[in-house]
Amino acid sequence: MQDIKIDYTNIMAPAIGKANGLIEENFTALSFRADKIHDDLVSRRKSGDKPFYDLPYKIKEAKELIKAASTIKKNFSNMVVLGIGGSALGTTAMLTALGRPMHNFVSSRKRGGVRLFVADNIDPDEFGALLSTLKLKDTVFNVVSKSGSTAETMSQFMIVLDLLKNKLGRGWKKHLILTTDAKEGILREIADTYRLKTFVVPDGVGGRFTAFTPVCLLPAASAGIDILGMLKGAARMDERCRTGDLRKNPAYLFASIHYLQDTLKGKKMTVMMPYSYRLKDVADWFRQLWAESLGKARDIDGNPVHAGQTPIKALGATDQHSQVQLYVEGPFDKLFCLLEVESFKTEMPIPEPFEDQPGISYLGGQSLNRLIAVEKDGTEYALTTNNRPNMTIKLPEVSAHTLGQLLYMLEVATAFAGGLYRVDAFDQPGVEFGKQYAYAMMGRAGYEKKKAEYESGKSKKRLVV
Amino acid sequence: MQDIKIDYTNIMAPAIGKANGLIEENFTALSFRADKIHDDLVSRRKSGDKPFYDLPYKIKEAKELIKAASTIKKNFSNMVVLGIGGSALGTTAMLTALGRPMHNFVSSRKRGGVRLFVADNIDPDEFGALLSTLKLKDTVFNVVSKSGSTAETMSQFMIVLDLLKNKLGRGWKKHLILTTDAKEGILREIADTYRLKTFVVPDGVGGRFTAFTPVCLLPAASAGIDILGMLKGAARMDERCRTGDLRKNPAYLFASIHYLQDTLKGKKMTVMMPYSYRLKDVADWFRQLWAESLGKARDIDGNPVHAGQTPIKALGATDQHSQVQLYVEGPFDKLFCLLEVESFKTEMPIPEPFEDQPGISYLGGQSLNRLIAVEKDGTEYALTTNNRPNMTIKLPEVSAHTLGQLLYMLEVATAFAGGLYRVDAFDQPGVEFGKQYAYAMMGRAGYEKKKAEYESGKSKKRLVV
Repeated sequence: MQDIKIDYTNIMAPAIGKANGLIEENFTALSFRADKIHDDLVSRRKSGDKPFYDLPYKIKEAKELIKAASTIKKNFSNMVVLGIGGSALGTTAMLTALGRPMHNFVSSRKRGGVRLFVADNIDPDEFGALLSTLKLKDTVFNVVSKSGSTAETMSQFMIVLDLLKNKLGRGWKKHLILTTDAKEGILREIADTYRLKTFVVPDGVGGRFTAFTPVCLLPAASAGIDILGMLKGAARMDERCRTGDLRKNPAYLFASIHYLQDTLKGKKMTVMMPYSYRLKDVADWFRQLWAESLGKARDIDGNPVHAGQTPIKALGATDQHSQVQLYVEGPFDKLFCLLEVESFKTEMPIPEPFEDQPGISYLGGQSLNRLIAVEKDGTEYALTTNNRPNMTIKLPEVSAHTLGQLLYMLEVATAFAGGLYRVDAFDQPGVEFGKQYAYAMMGRAGYEKKKAEYESGKSKKRLVV
Repeated sequence: MQDIKIDYTNIMAPAIGKANGLIEENFTALSFRADKIHDDLVSRRKSGDKPFYDLPYKIKEAKELIKAASTIKKNFSNMVVLGIGGSALGTTAMLTALGRPMHNFVSSRKRGGVRLFVADNIDPDEFGALLSTLKLKDTVFNVVSKSGSTAETMSQFMIVLDLLKNKLGRGWKKHLILTTDAKEGILREIADTYRLKTFVVPDGVGGRFTAFTPVCLLPAASAGIDILGMLKGAARMDERCRTGDLRKNPAYLFASIHYLQDTLKGKKMTVMMPYSYRLKDVADWFRQLWAESLGKARDIDGNPVHAGQTPIKALGATDQHSQVQLYVEGPFDKLFCLLEVESFKTEMPIPEPFEDQPGISYLGGQSLNRLIAVEKDGTEYALTTNNRPNMTIKLPEVSAHTLGQLLYMLEVATAFAGGLYRVDAFDQPGVEFGKQYAYAMMGRAGYEKKKAEYESGKSKKRLVV
């Protein structure tokens, strides 16, 4: 069981110069505030205010999920998750990382679990195709919404419910599993009325912090993923994150580097670039975590700040042929976090068919494993030479244990970064604007006045070419 | 055959205020330079220096591709494209937009063409799984590299060649199609030696401008996509882009808005956010086009500029639950380009099973089609109310004709933006840093001195937590 590591050599001035690199004193100057933020988080954790911290220890609950998953695997070949945002991104990240590559394509024996589809959008062509492609009788739907009022998810649910009743008749109930609040909300009421199978989204755990709850763990376990291994990894990271020392706590180090590079060096974007297909969707999951937690109009005192570093997902080596030109030569406005995997599961040797072609013969006798490692080093070299701050998170391998560590570290980093930026990392007031609009325009009762207001507020004169 | 439109009402000061919105005079002030850039591009097109402009008229060549595709469809169920960057992104964009949703999952009759896999990375787990999942005898490999020296693609090719020879014996040749330079390079030599089937990457068309060449059109046609329809759409857009008038030429308008918002209003990022799953990978294709063309250290006179707006891909409605919090409340550093589809292929009505639940009953009797349209309007409203510049590209539907228009418009916009930013939009010198490094470290002959140099240049003392 190996630990993941952060190499931050190339964040510092000796590697990339003073204009873009940090110096030791930057961290020292932060340590007084860091101690206070740490103490505050520790006491909030103790008081039960931040239950996400203790999720890695819910072993009993995880074992129940594994039992449920085993029944699901017996009865169904396909699971479709109806969920969006925090109810989708963690599940997708786990599937891509720990499912078999081409998971949904291969036989059930090779997969070791259900095919898993995360339906996190309402595009009618896409959702329609999914429903018409899967055999309904082999498919279970996991509806995920804490409140039960998420418009996208509930619309999908209403469509699926109707379809199940029409096509399967009396057996429809066993094709539905609802993951929602323990006591309240529309989905809970519906579950009670129809006696549907449910799992609970724990109180006080916001959508983007639900990786280690049934929201993600039930679909993951159903797909054959080792969820206990992930929890163990998360618990191991929790151990490493107990210290308040910025330079020892990996999560605090990650957050501090981001905060210092943003506020002192103008790095308004942070690019997460895994050199591993398996970690591709971790970058997407992190994108929500960082953006929604820290992108805030007001600080905790209510003063306007318009804070928030923009997280960008990239993929190595692919994006070397798309984004690296900009990363290396463009504005000095980005910080880079490369993810490196030290050992892949497959070894792919490159044969030597073209020994007389010097332009490619050097590749023969080597391996894709070596090539992707060298290309990662090459990007690190190119970024560093061009004075672009970059760090590398090294995973000994992609496993349940390392993924658990990584996700938990990024969650703790986000909570701590909220303290550094002095914003509430756990709310999302800005999402309301669009929601209110949608309620009004879809004709929800009580929004009639708002609707009139929206309609009158629209520009009459449109500029169109 | 309807035209796509750009609505740029919410880019302007009357909609979002003077601090973030443009005024008419901004465009007027640009028109003198715009005329000169236009004249220059027109004369370069005439002289044959920018052949990408005339690709929509290569109808004879396209018909040959369709003929070839028809043979491919007869002989194979799967095509794997071995290509990266410009040799992959356009193909993927076309497949997602115009293939059937869940294309690779459904029967060949429904698909109307081969299953299409774009292998644009060298992750050994991912590539290994692809090769071991597909039935080799049903699979054709399209190797795409103009120079034939792209390390990632050529490594894949060497692996595949070996596999084909070992597993299929004498029949291996018909499983390979090479798309490469007409006369030069390693792949051309190999094709000549072994008498392999080839298609040509036209001279003077850089990787990211190859959408309307065999690079993308052969795999697209093989997957059953209407490539003549795309060319017609592109030709229609070409017609609309013949004028030098910034406010009439859609490509120039798109480019000018980006340039003005970047240089006058500090919008260092541009977010392309399609409200359509089908257009998701157009945003990824555009991301290469914009980043690699405009992200440059030096201007055309050789002066340091470190130019380049960062393109970001997002997806509606999904990212409303991930990124919109940051977009609406965070820093005023982004410009938004929403893509709207006016008519989907599928109508997905929402039934009314919960009439007594006011929190969701308003959705019943409506449709996913209406919901996604309202959510797009909601995001537009939220952005505009919070003074975030946003425009919408409206597609009457996603079809070969509209996609052809869109891709061609973005190509012309990029060429024109190169003129505005005064950079060479057609080179990519920054990609060399990492390439040289990889050559040296992989032991390519002639790079021995470089290797020693790189190794001695590395920080001995690593900072690791």
